Amino acid sequence: MKLYDTKTAPNPRRVRIFLAEKGIEVPTVQVDIAGGENRTSPYIDKNPFAGVPMLELDDGTILAESVAICRYFEELHPEPPLMGTDAQDRALVEMWNRRMEHHIALPAMNSFRHTHEFFKGRIPQVPEFGQNAKEEVLTRMAWLDGELAAREFIAGDTYTIADITAQIGIDFGRVTKISIADEHTNLKRWHDAVSARPSASA
Amino acid sequence: MKLYDTKTAPNPRRVRIFLAEKGIEVPTVQVDIAGGENRTSPYIDKNPFAGVPMLELDDGTILAESVAICRYFEELHPEPPLMGTDAQDRALVEMWNRRMEHHIALPAMNSFRHTHEFFKGRIPQVPEFGQNAKEEVLTRMAWLDGELAAREFIAGDTYTIADITAQIGIDFGRVTKISIADEHTNLKRWHDAVSARPSASA
Repeated sequence: MKLYDTKTAPNPRRVRIFLAEKGIEVPTVQVDIAGGENRTSPYIDKNPFAGVPMLELDDGTILAESVAICRYFEELHPEPPLMGTDAQDRALVEMWNRRMEHHIALPAMNSFRHTHEFFKGRIPQVPEFGQNAKEEVLTRMAWLDGELAAREFIAGDTYTIADITAQIGIDFGRVTKISIADEHTNLKRWHDAVSARPSASA
Repeated sequence: MKLYDTKTAPNPRRVRIFLAEKGIEVPTVQVDIAGGENRTSPYIDKNPFAGVPMLELDDGTILAESVAICRYFEELHPEPPLMGTDAQDRALVEMWNRRMEHHIALPAMNSFRHTHEFFKGRIPQVPEFGQNAKEEVLTRMAWLDGELAAREFIAGDTYTIADITAQIGIDFGRVTKISIADEHTNLKRWHDAVSARPSASA
């Protein structure tokens, strides 16, 4: 199999961290998003939505969407579990992962997409929407700080994919000056902990 | 357990259709979104993101996010499988479900949220973003029509949660005048098929 990756982008980083936590090595191919490689043939023929990462299996099957790729590896290599351990736990991890996606990572990406020069001409930018997305991330980070007063990780006392999604979202937020406020000591403690894991540099 | 539901909203409908396809009956409580019931206590204390649906388990555990709720029921009642049958298939269904979420259902909801009077004062509306979201749904529907020339359902030859997500997204699109174009005969054939299933009225 082959993983199409872009070192600078948040969604591929999510899969890289996930793989590093599992101790899985997969041959990777770098995709030049800045040069538009993902929006031209042959990449776009394989993934019509142009998203990176993308996993190409040996039989040619294309698997896109970072969480779908993570789920595939979770089933192939169940240890350590990063997506829950029984029906209820797996559902709760999915809930937390989706909360981190929709209220942290996605708005952090939308803040960039709708306000940054990089996306000018690539998408119909609406700066006001991008600014609101940034405000949403900041509001949710304040809320998340309160949540993390009571537990070590996002979905409970165990590190899961929800931590990875929050991590890549918050770290990517730096490009539009989203950062953890000094008073959010629980969020800071959590962020220091996930950043200290070897997977953080994946 | 108890399912908090709102008859008129698309995400609760996703769970209702999923349960109907499984033949599962769950006691439900109607939540008055229009009256703001989901944004006040006690609902907001249980689900700080105010989203409906929400599942309350007998031990008081709260499970939010419609796909997380579906995954829980998929594990409790595996038949008929609606989220894939082996590692690769489950990952592919997740990929298709996410594509339908991010490129059909979510922009259809954003089209409503950002342009409709219902959301005035509830969120910071950006009508231009809402209009772009509508355009995105229409573009993706045209693409989906081509995909459906080669197979019966969204993720392959079997009905899955990806069909449900596309169905609730496209049907909800009606509120902002999103509809299937006459020339998209494959999409129309698929939509007629999913609409004819007894679950469609759930």
